[in-house]
Amino acid sequence: MRQSKLFTKTKKEAPTDEISKNAELLIRAGFIHKEMAGVYSYLPLGLRVLNKIENIIREEMNMVGGIEMRTAVFQSKEVWEKSNRWDDDIVDAWFKTKLKNGGEVGLSFTNEEAYSNILKQYVSSYKDLPIYPYDFKNIFRNEVRSKSGIMRGREFYWKALYSFSRNEEEHNEFYEKMKVAYQNIFKRSGIGHLTYMTFASGGSFSKYSHEFQTVISVGEDTIYLDEDSGIAINKEVYNDETIKGLGLIKEKLVEKRAVEVGNIFSLGTRFSEPFDLKYKDEKSQENLVIMGSYGIGLGRLMGTVVEALADDKGIIWPESIAPFKVHLLLLGDDEDVKKEADHVYETLTKNNIEVLFDDRVGLSPGEKFADADLLGIPYRFVVSSRSMKDNGVEVKKRNEEKGKVVSLEELLVLLKHSA
Amino acid sequence: MRQSKLFTKTKKEAPTDEISKNAELLIRAGFIHKEMAGVYSYLPLGLRVLNKIENIIREEMNMVGGIEMRTAVFQSKEVWEKSNRWDDDIVDAWFKTKLKNGGEVGLSFTNEEAYSNILKQYVSSYKDLPIYPYDFKNIFRNEVRSKSGIMRGREFYWKALYSFSRNEEEHNEFYEKMKVAYQNIFKRSGIGHLTYMTFASGGSFSKYSHEFQTVISVGEDTIYLDEDSGIAINKEVYNDETIKGLGLIKEKLVEKRAVEVGNIFSLGTRFSEPFDLKYKDEKSQENLVIMGSYGIGLGRLMGTVVEALADDKGIIWPESIAPFKVHLLLLGDDEDVKKEADHVYETLTKNNIEVLFDDRVGLSPGEKFADADLLGIPYRFVVSSRSMKDNGVEVKKRNEEKGKVVSLEELLVLLKHSA
Repeated sequence: MRQSKLFTKTKKEAPTDEISKNAELLIRAGFIHKEMAGVYSYLPLGLRVLNKIENIIREEMNMVGGIEMRTAVFQSKEVWEKSNRWDDDIVDAWFKTKLKNGGEVGLSFTNEEAYSNILKQYVSSYKDLPIYPYDFKNIFRNEVRSKSGIMRGREFYWKALYSFSRNEEEHNEFYEKMKVAYQNIFKRSGIGHLTYMTFASGGSFSKYSHEFQTVISVGEDTIYLDEDSGIAINKEVYNDETIKGLGLIKEKLVEKRAVEVGNIFSLGTRFSEPFDLKYKDEKSQENLVIMGSYGIGLGRLMGTVVEALADDKGIIWPESIAPFKVHLLLLGDDEDVKKEADHVYETLTKNNIEVLFDDRVGLSPGEKFADADLLGIPYRFVVSSRSMKDNGVEVKKRNEEKGKVVSLEELLVLLKHSA
Repeated sequence: MRQSKLFTKTKKEAPTDEISKNAELLIRAGFIHKEMAGVYSYLPLGLRVLNKIENIIREEMNMVGGIEMRTAVFQSKEVWEKSNRWDDDIVDAWFKTKLKNGGEVGLSFTNEEAYSNILKQYVSSYKDLPIYPYDFKNIFRNEVRSKSGIMRGREFYWKALYSFSRNEEEHNEFYEKMKVAYQNIFKRSGIGHLTYMTFASGGSFSKYSHEFQTVISVGEDTIYLDEDSGIAINKEVYNDETIKGLGLIKEKLVEKRAVEVGNIFSLGTRFSEPFDLKYKDEKSQENLVIMGSYGIGLGRLMGTVVEALADDKGIIWPESIAPFKVHLLLLGDDEDVKKEADHVYETLTKNNIEVLFDDRVGLSPGEKFADADLLGIPYRFVVSSRSMKDNGVEVKKRNEEKGKVVSLEELLVLLKHSA
């Protein structure tokens, strides 16, 4: 894409009320627009990142047998009363709104009820199970404070998968698969090395739930990490019993600030019971379905990547979720240089390499370099009179200090072999 | 996909309060789930159709220079007060909800304000224009009645593009391109032959807006159609002046019921003025940006296709938006037949043909045929002991009466050359 056709521009400053690093950088670089505290629109560059994260998650969910659908945002009182979660005194995260012809509806803050209610129509026999449906959708939570940029939204884009299994054994087998799938997602998104499976409070149906916590200084959670095994314990269940139960040694655990980028937990029959979600087994006996819940906030993941990897010049995107792979900069207004830059752009595009081509006129090299650093695209290619003298393109990775001049042919090989 | 892995099942009946044909068929076939009047969840088959429609629209929008982004659902009072559309007495379609820490937010019912407000930050010079941003998102409208299934939702999935042009001439040029893009969308979605560009009421800035009206008996609009030219007039502007102005002859116009599947209109400076959206031209003079609006409801389009093309046995999907291209039916429980059906399934899948494979056991041929008719997938392939005797697969198109036995090799060629 030609940058001259991209309507967003970089800014020197973010809104004064924006105190989070992720939103500050993303707003300045033109990835998002702040509508109000905790509510952001995704501009073209931001949507590209979000879509890449979505595709990684989709691939991993499909791999374990997930099947995609899309539940509605509007939720009815009748459905949520079954599980006793309609009342604002019980769930205080609700946004509710009034129908013109009477009655109130809620805005999804999670999906257990919607899925249980839908599945109730389709599940009756052991042959109907297991089922692993999921969706991506906007979720709404009435947060009192919302100061963490896209890491804690009042409105946010969320993946939720629910597992419906015949028994504990089948449930546990899938739950283990999801642990791996989640680890794959964070690895593929570029924060695997900072993300730890963390034991957190369970519920009536399992001793622990599992969070995936990414260690960053602005994390809202406190975890205790065993760096050898990569296992962590959330503060909420950090006690001698847990430490011993997990075979860890207290003295080796390090306290860290971290952000929860995903969580998975066993629901047991918490929802299948109120929704009367049962199946007949081979002996025609009725059993309650065993459920599990597996969530990831895509904005939170995107914000965490920014927080974790950015430097003082701007964002650093991992290749897997970068809006483009290559940021091609044309320097100066010499006609031959312009022609060569056009040629490089077309060649890369023909080779299916995603390029943002900074073809803007009237900007100094310094301005273009600063913009490239702020935007954080992994490979910076520069075409200038100097690079042409050296018969190539100057290549520099965003996280490297120095570039080198390489021929276009070599570049194509290089990109083919990169992640 | 194996139908045994698809958790939805067909039903004999839709909910008793569902009076629209589109929702009745889509619910019975397991494409959607009714949450409440005007609110539907999209089950796996339904989401596949929605995604295909989305991709057709995206391709056409990108072709005319559109750039995708995604605005937030939550809208702030301050922004909408600028255009004087916050007050419920002025816009009665609003859903509003309260923030826990005070204040009210609205749920998007359209996007003019959000886009104007965002673009205001980025547009200052003639070099910044034109811009054609668009998004797909859920839109909410507080409809009093909602009895048309997915054709009129309280919550619905919507594409909106806004054009930002320097002057009337540039605006008109783009507007003409969008007419063609819209016609392409409806053609590609399989209802081009029933869809007519219709002159409807304009506003302060243009005499007419343009609707794309699909002729179906349950349409909520009345249009007057000139069948020779394919031009129609909406009842709201149907008068001697309009007829004469368009060069039509009153006696030749036929009254039809139709549903508006898309609309485009010129906004002039209706929004650029309150948002102070101006640019400096080549002479450093300030001018207001000229805007246009271009919307399509994806659920409405999907519902219209069902209404327009279904027969008394069920849905008939056009190939372009069908959830799968082929519905492969395995009949009987003979091991050789099963083996052959598996082979056909794998061969089609390997050739990148989307197949729903009805591998379910314990269903009669009649039940499988009835389900296939209800689901409406374009090609029905049957593997049975009879088709094997004839050394092939029995093929029938959903809209044909009789099938014929064809070899697998010929089928692959046939599918390659179909739409």
